[in-house]
Amino acid sequence: MKDVAKLAGRPARLKRRQFLAEGPQAVREALLAHRAAIDEGLPPVVAEVFATEVCLERYPEFPDLASGLPLRLASDDVIAAMADTVSPQGIVAVCHFVDRTLDNVLAAGPRLLAVMVRVQDPGNAGTVLRAADSAGADAVILTSSSVDIYNPKAVRSTVGSLFHLPVVTGVDFEVLIQRLQARGIVLLAADGYGDIDLDRLQDESALRRLGNQEVGSGSPERTGPALEAATAWLFGNEGQGLSDAELASAQYRVAVPLYGQAESLNVGTAATVCLYASARAQRELV
Amino acid sequence: MKDVAKLAGRPARLKRRQFLAEGPQAVREALLAHRAAIDEGLPPVVAEVFATEVCLERYPEFPDLASGLPLRLASDDVIAAMADTVSPQGIVAVCHFVDRTLDNVLAAGPRLLAVMVRVQDPGNAGTVLRAADSAGADAVILTSSSVDIYNPKAVRSTVGSLFHLPVVTGVDFEVLIQRLQARGIVLLAADGYGDIDLDRLQDESALRRLGNQEVGSGSPERTGPALEAATAWLFGNEGQGLSDAELASAQYRVAVPLYGQAESLNVGTAATVCLYASARAQRELV
Repeated sequence: MKDVAKLAGRPARLKRRQFLAEGPQAVREALLAHRAAIDEGLPPVVAEVFATEVCLERYPEFPDLASGLPLRLASDDVIAAMADTVSPQGIVAVCHFVDRTLDNVLAAGPRLLAVMVRVQDPGNAGTVLRAADSAGADAVILTSSSVDIYNPKAVRSTVGSLFHLPVVTGVDFEVLIQRLQARGIVLLAADGYGDIDLDRLQDESALRRLGNQEVGSGSPERTGPALEAATAWLFGNEGQGLSDAELASAQYRVAVPLYGQAESLNVGTAATVCLYASARAQRELV
Repeated sequence: MKDVAKLAGRPARLKRRQFLAEGPQAVREALLAHRAAIDEGLPPVVAEVFATEVCLERYPEFPDLASGLPLRLASDDVIAAMADTVSPQGIVAVCHFVDRTLDNVLAAGPRLLAVMVRVQDPGNAGTVLRAADSAGADAVILTSSSVDIYNPKAVRSTVGSLFHLPVVTGVDFEVLIQRLQARGIVLLAADGYGDIDLDRLQDESALRRLGNQEVGSGSPERTGPALEAATAWLFGNEGQGLSDAELASAQYRVAVPLYGQAESLNVGTAATVCLYASARAQRELV
């Protein structure tokens, strides 16, 4: 039990390559991902589950979901002591790290990637990951100086999305850029001061998708990247954004327009708008 | 000082119709809004400011920004005792409630409104307000059973946007719906189970904006509302969404598409996508 509680801290997580999923929703997602992994001959996602009797009465599906895995009864106090949350609602799962290698992700020919560059807040990292899942991104990549995505608060903020799409962690920024460029993936920096307006890219993309090459006085000039191309979005640190060097690594600097008086967007919000713009452009007219 | 600290609680806020802005960024936005209000002959936004000497050395612009207002020196301990934040960074402002009446907001002929219906989490409420500001919404409306937007955590989450656009609080839901309908404002319910796909609305709107009525095999059928119309988006409670009765009050139920495996979107994220879609549709091709 003490060993489990230690997973709230990074050293124990790194040493054992395990982390905690807390609460019925996260544990359910972990168990579903575990079952899918086993069915596909992939490594297990969950190591063991601890739950209170009351929790199992309330959610009688868990013993079945956890079949083949150690499911241990524990008291409320024990669960609370293991978990980082004040109220883990009677269930926690010890999970194996789920991150993949960059090679593994690139080999699958990704069309849409979300890259977090020095994102520091676990809640923001989780929100970006959830947004990437919602927008159907192929993977999420965190550079080596970003927050630990297995931090309990980050795991909670993903609301299960950590188990939904491939995640790559601890990637050196320079190496990542080279690898993405070599694959011909367009690098877009999300940058409030960017010279390219995301709305303009969306309009141009809509024109192409909707099959119209001659609107008004003629086809508009391409001013930047085609959103429908294979794309990696770079999202920077919440305070400082992307550094000049990081911005220079991207092919384009794209700004989400600010229509009101807000000075900036939260990184999770910006990521949502950017990833949804790409997702929409990459799909046919619905 | 104790009176100021009491503003962290709702009873004192309601009684005095005052709230706290904490930290340099929020206080700066409050003071800028205060100056603009005074210049326009509107009621004052800020009542008084408390700051540490260290803070005023670090941000020497504050005495000037606060000119005409009581600016009181206080110790770190006093500031910390007044504020809700662990680290208010040496400055807090006592602000007057800034909300307006529904009449006032509707009289201005709004084109885009964000309505929070029973949103309970202060962080979510702040995020929706900030997203509304970013998307250039004309006002934000909170129904009577929503969280108090003057809650310190909500104020912080708006990152100054509370001072940027009109906010209406404590509105009865039924009354609101009637008033919006009477104005001919289209009511869109953001609903994960909605029968209308936001992407489709965006595509149809893009076609109209881009001046093309005949694409492919003919003009597409209008399947729902025109995003470019004057619109009020309804965003529901974070756990339960909008109730059946609330959904029935809207003219259309619109879903933000989920491309990945995520089961739902955070209300702040959904609001961002919806409000940006409207903002973009309401503007000309950039």
